[in-house]
Amino acid sequence: MELLKQKIVNEGKALSDTVLKVDRFLNHQIDPQLMQEIGKEFASLFQESGITKILTLESSGIAPSVMTGLQLDVPVIFARKRKSLTLVENLYSANVYSFTKQETSEISISSDFITSEDTVLVIDDFLANGQAALGLIDLVKQAGAKIAGVGIVIEKAFQEGGSLIEEQGIRLESLAKIASLSKGNVTFEEEETI
Amino acid sequence: MELLKQKIVNEGKALSDTVLKVDRFLNHQIDPQLMQEIGKEFASLFQESGITKILTLESSGIAPSVMTGLQLDVPVIFARKRKSLTLVENLYSANVYSFTKQETSEISISSDFITSEDTVLVIDDFLANGQAALGLIDLVKQAGAKIAGVGIVIEKAFQEGGSLIEEQGIRLESLAKIASLSKGNVTFEEEETI
Repeated sequence: MELLKQKIVNEGKALSDTVLKVDRFLNHQIDPQLMQEIGKEFASLFQESGITKILTLESSGIAPSVMTGLQLDVPVIFARKRKSLTLVENLYSANVYSFTKQETSEISISSDFITSEDTVLVIDDFLANGQAALGLIDLVKQAGAKIAGVGIVIEKAFQEGGSLIEEQGIRLESLAKIASLSKGNVTFEEEETI
Repeated sequence: MELLKQKIVNEGKALSDTVLKVDRFLNHQIDPQLMQEIGKEFASLFQESGITKILTLESSGIAPSVMTGLQLDVPVIFARKRKSLTLVENLYSANVYSFTKQETSEISISSDFITSEDTVLVIDDFLANGQAALGLIDLVKQAGAKIAGVGIVIEKAFQEGGSLIEEQGIRLESLAKIASLSKGNVTFEEEETI
């Protein structure tokens, strides 16, 4: 997605070989027009997939998901993160390890909102080690729903998340795939591969 | 806003005299079409206010804020919540006490995204005791920016948040004002008052 790549080049900051800061338009300050274009792109990629629900993770997944939900005319559910395990009824939960924070969070959704009748599109802002996306996929499986695919705004394609998802036979669509980062420089993958 | 009130009546659940559950369309599962209408309503109410930025709080404030930002063509910043005080440079921070959780969170934003040149609309999903909204107002003041007003999706008008904001001379627009809750019953205020 050219507009997104331009935005990453112009307003993103590669802080190191692994850290890309995009808090000017995606995960702290949000550019609503860009989110709308992202929503249109995901909707176009998954329009034949019979999506009935979108599942994302708070907080940075919400804006692109709601814009996609608007285009596909389906509800969005966001999983909540907690630090400690809380015993609450009617929840699907999964543990997600963050390599950045070096801590495990529990993510969970109410079992009221995804059922075995649903076909779910999982959306998140970033894909790196894939732990958050795999946690979301786990929640969908617990609900017995079908997974139409995973839509990612920015994939760090040099990390293992992408292959972990595709190994499960799940369709992955990343709007910007970063081949490498070095301080001050972002290189995108030349060709989109599926 | 009639559509919102209908949604509250049809899909909300008054669990007690003070707790309204709206996780079917606002703060867990999100109805994107409703969010779009909410965005149009806030944009219409504040279109003459010269808004340059919208400030909200993760997570449930993000969807209505991004839809409003889309209509007004301005960026949205969401403040993050943390449980403990972290010393990080270039942050504006405020403490917010949650009566529900009985704990104090620190909310913060990067000082990069709101400046003294900005006119800010504060948006949140709920207004009850007003602690979150007052914290957001505090962040805007720390930045030296102008506050155009506060836009709230659902106000529990029987709690003190509304008067605390208006006492500061700040314009408050709530799209649904609840006069009272009792288990199973929601009563709205008859007339919108400013």
